[in-house]
Amino acid sequence: MPRPVLALTSGEPAGIGPELTVMLAAEGVAGVDLVAVGDPDLLAERAERLGLAVEIVPLALDEPLPAPRPGRLPVWPVALRAPAPPGLLQVANADYVLETLDVAVRACLAGRAAGMVTAPLHKGVILEAGHAGFTGHTEYLRDACGVEEVVMMLATDRPLHATREGWRGPGALRVALATTHLPLREVADAISAEGLLRVLRILDADLQRWFGLLAPRIAVCGLNPHAGEGGHLGREELEVIEPALAALRAEGLRLDGPLPADTLFTPRHLEGVDAVLAMYHDQGLPVLKYAGFGSAANITLGLPLVRTSVDHGTALDLAGSGRADPGSLRVAVALAAEMAGRDPIKQR
Amino acid sequence: MPRPVLALTSGEPAGIGPELTVMLAAEGVAGVDLVAVGDPDLLAERAERLGLAVEIVPLALDEPLPAPRPGRLPVWPVALRAPAPPGLLQVANADYVLETLDVAVRACLAGRAAGMVTAPLHKGVILEAGHAGFTGHTEYLRDACGVEEVVMMLATDRPLHATREGWRGPGALRVALATTHLPLREVADAISAEGLLRVLRILDADLQRWFGLLAPRIAVCGLNPHAGEGGHLGREELEVIEPALAALRAEGLRLDGPLPADTLFTPRHLEGVDAVLAMYHDQGLPVLKYAGFGSAANITLGLPLVRTSVDHGTALDLAGSGRADPGSLRVAVALAAEMAGRDPIKQR
Repeated sequence: MPRPVLALTSGEPAGIGPELTVMLAAEGVAGVDLVAVGDPDLLAERAERLGLAVEIVPLALDEPLPAPRPGRLPVWPVALRAPAPPGLLQVANADYVLETLDVAVRACLAGRAAGMVTAPLHKGVILEAGHAGFTGHTEYLRDACGVEEVVMMLATDRPLHATREGWRGPGALRVALATTHLPLREVADAISAEGLLRVLRILDADLQRWFGLLAPRIAVCGLNPHAGEGGHLGREELEVIEPALAALRAEGLRLDGPLPADTLFTPRHLEGVDAVLAMYHDQGLPVLKYAGFGSAANITLGLPLVRTSVDHGTALDLAGSGRADPGSLRVAVALAAEMAGRDPIKQR
Repeated sequence: MPRPVLALTSGEPAGIGPELTVMLAAEGVAGVDLVAVGDPDLLAERAERLGLAVEIVPLALDEPLPAPRPGRLPVWPVALRAPAPPGLLQVANADYVLETLDVAVRACLAGRAAGMVTAPLHKGVILEAGHAGFTGHTEYLRDACGVEEVVMMLATDRPLHATREGWRGPGALRVALATTHLPLREVADAISAEGLLRVLRILDADLQRWFGLLAPRIAVCGLNPHAGEGGHLGREELEVIEPALAALRAEGLRLDGPLPADTLFTPRHLEGVDAVLAMYHDQGLPVLKYAGFGSAANITLGLPLVRTSVDHGTALDLAGSGRADPGSLRVAVALAAEMAGRDPIKQR
């Protein structure tokens, strides 16, 4: 089996992304060719600051990769626009961050990389630089790839798995979201049957494509507590969610629900479930991150490429200290490698 | 230390409550005098149906309790209004269920019991019997005790506890709710500074009184994803929650937050936290029930008595089968015993 090539964008240069990148390169990653995307001098400086022996190898996109080994980091270079001392955001570097994403997308679409992993960026500084309406990696990549809808899914890579006896491994918990970053008071109106059809079709298709699940089983949360309790605690289950699920079952999707969220996330209901669809951010992600205790990864489904990401921010206060935890980045890389290795298109 | 007396209301007679009660009596409960409240013949019938040797001992409220031993169940009797075959709801028995609650409250307020534990009732059949506006145990007990506000808290009794290295015990996760059974679209408007002041004062006071925590530390969730992200994802944190927390900190309460719910439920943030206040049902309970994997218990704070409950329903489909799991009832009894044992008033 070929080792998949993954592009790792090193993210906001004043944050912890660059040092997490060199930390991972120093320890080495089995079974994958990791290529950083970022400023080679910045990465070399962060490695030196942390006392890590990392050989930075800048390469053109079409150059062959050197033999992988711990401590060697090939880089597809993007030049910083301004110096980037740890912790100090520079508006001038917003375009640098976006360019790293463009390079990674190009590498994937050209077949040079099987997927991309993203270290955190800082939304505020990109907005401040004049990119009005920028809402994050996910939507940027959606537009860069020219697709209409993407789905955010988080996954743990822990040996926590629900059985009737408790939680035991191996197995991952996967939670996808029907809506993402909305004020809570806007959530109920944002749930539509059409939206659920789009999201669930993407989720079903990509669980097959990237996760090797022939007939994935998806458990769907209700919107309201107790999934509306037969209409007593809200009617969206009856009027919106159930009709959407019925239509999708007729297409052959294997769907449980809508189920009360606090029932669904228990062993009896999670057993045999490949992914959960939560209706909104705080219904699904607290339990996912609790289960993964800080080493979950974020996956964007619906793209023509594999994309995973850390589940944390730029942590400006930790930048340069060497105290940042590469746990989530490790999970993100491992997941991307697993996904890329399964994709029949990239395996050719 | 005296063994606390706990009144255990056996709940909806057609559900699993009566059989869970005799199951617990058969196995015995260490360190507590358990007195069932219900129909003695019903309890005897369920014990026989399950093949359990349980000696039912009906008693008047002022009679002394027999020496406790596994297989002996003292009962404060309440007579069924109609036969109650398993699984078959009878409107006529709604008043029976409510009377068991009245007896348990009377026993507590008269000092005959140190607390009460409730098996599940069926809301629908009580509404159907003409008790309009009945919304559940919690509100019924609030009114029966003549208090204005109560707080719903769930707790695990599992050896799961957050440390930086992961989840290890001993320690319980406790999650209280600022709002409970509301359609999601009504939640944002139901969060008020006054409400948060009331709920957090009760939570703080009862963590001291019943849980022996001198200066409890409470972590408070934001309402919106990312706790509103500085106003970009909702303004309730800035306009409602933060001012309420500031006022309470000035009273001496130890409060973290408002924090993003998916950050809060991770080891770094839960370490040293005695309870979490979630803003609504599905923000807090999925993670609590995941952590407790089906053996969490429900606690009502703000009452002049200890009250705990199972975290599940009547399970009419399981009633009479002996396949119901007494795990949550065990946790509810253990928690009530612990709480009652700590209350200085009841220890006299």
